[in-house]
Amino acid sequence: MKLQAIGTIHSPYKTKDEAPSQGKFSAEVSTIEIKPAYKKGLEDVVSLSHILVFYWQDQSDRSVLTAQPPFADRSLGVFATRSPNRPNPIALCTCELVSVQENKLTVKGLDALDSSPLLDIKPYAPQLDTVENSSDK
Amino acid sequence: MKLQAIGTIHSPYKTKDEAPSQGKFSAEVSTIEIKPAYKKGLEDVVSLSHILVFYWQDQSDRSVLTAQPPFADRSLGVFATRSPNRPNPIALCTCELVSVQENKLTVKGLDALDSSPLLDIKPYAPQLDTVENSSDK
Repeated sequence: MKLQAIGTIHSPYKTKDEAPSQGKFSAEVSTIEIKPAYKKGLEDVVSLSHILVFYWQDQSDRSVLTAQPPFADRSLGVFATRSPNRPNPIALCTCELVSVQENKLTVKGLDALDSSPLLDIKPYAPQLDTVENSSDK
Repeated sequence: MKLQAIGTIHSPYKTKDEAPSQGKFSAEVSTIEIKPAYKKGLEDVVSLSHILVFYWQDQSDRSVLTAQPPFADRSLGVFATRSPNRPNPIALCTCELVSVQENKLTVKGLDALDSSPLLDIKPYAPQLDTVENSSDK
C-alpha cells in the first residue's frame, strides 16, 4: 500500500515545538498547495465551509504503541490517543476552508508541520462525522 | 510513504454492491482484528464509546478525479466527495465501539468490504471532530 503526495502543506510551524497539539484551537492560517496533476479533483471544494485534511506526519516515530496525551497522567495505548507517533502516521484535521485560489487552499485549524505531504481532502459532513452522546468511560 | 496493515476488517459486505454507501446508517456489525504485534496499542481503547476507523479501500480506482455522489445530479471534484475512488483511498468511518475482546473490536457503523486492511484507529473527540455551523454553499 503506497501513498502518493497529492500536494504540500505550507504552515507557520517549522518544528514540532512550534506546532499546536491540536490545530483546531489555533487561529493560524496554512496553505495547501495541490499538485497540478490533481487540480481537477478540487472542483466544487470551494462550496464547502469545512474540510477534512489528511496529511502524512513524516517526522513521526512509527515504532511506538503507547503515548501520553497532554491531558493524561499516564501513557495510553496509542490507538486511544491522537498522538502523531503511531504505526501509520496519517493525521486528520477538521479545518475551516478560508479560500480557494487555483490549486491553493487557505485553511484555518491545521496543525501540520511546514512541508508535510498532503494525502487527501474530504468534505466535512456532520451527518457522518459527528456523534451524539459519545463518551470516554 | 508506505502503509502497513495493522489488522484486518471482517464485515458482512463481500462485494461493493453489498456495502452501504455510508456505514453510519447501517445497524450491521463488523469485527476488526488487530495483528498481535500491535495489540499493545489497543490498551485503553475499551474506555471509548466511538472510534475513528481508517482503512484502505483496496478495490478503489485511484486514477479518477471526479465522482458523482448518490445525492448529486452531476459529477463533482473527487475532493468534494466521499467517494472510495480517489488518489489515496484512505477511508474514514466514525464507528460505535460495541466491545473489545483480546485483539478483536466489534463495531457498528463501518462500511468496509470484508478483508479490508486496517490502517489506524483514533479516539473520536467531539471537540476536534465536530464543527458548529458548517455549510455546503
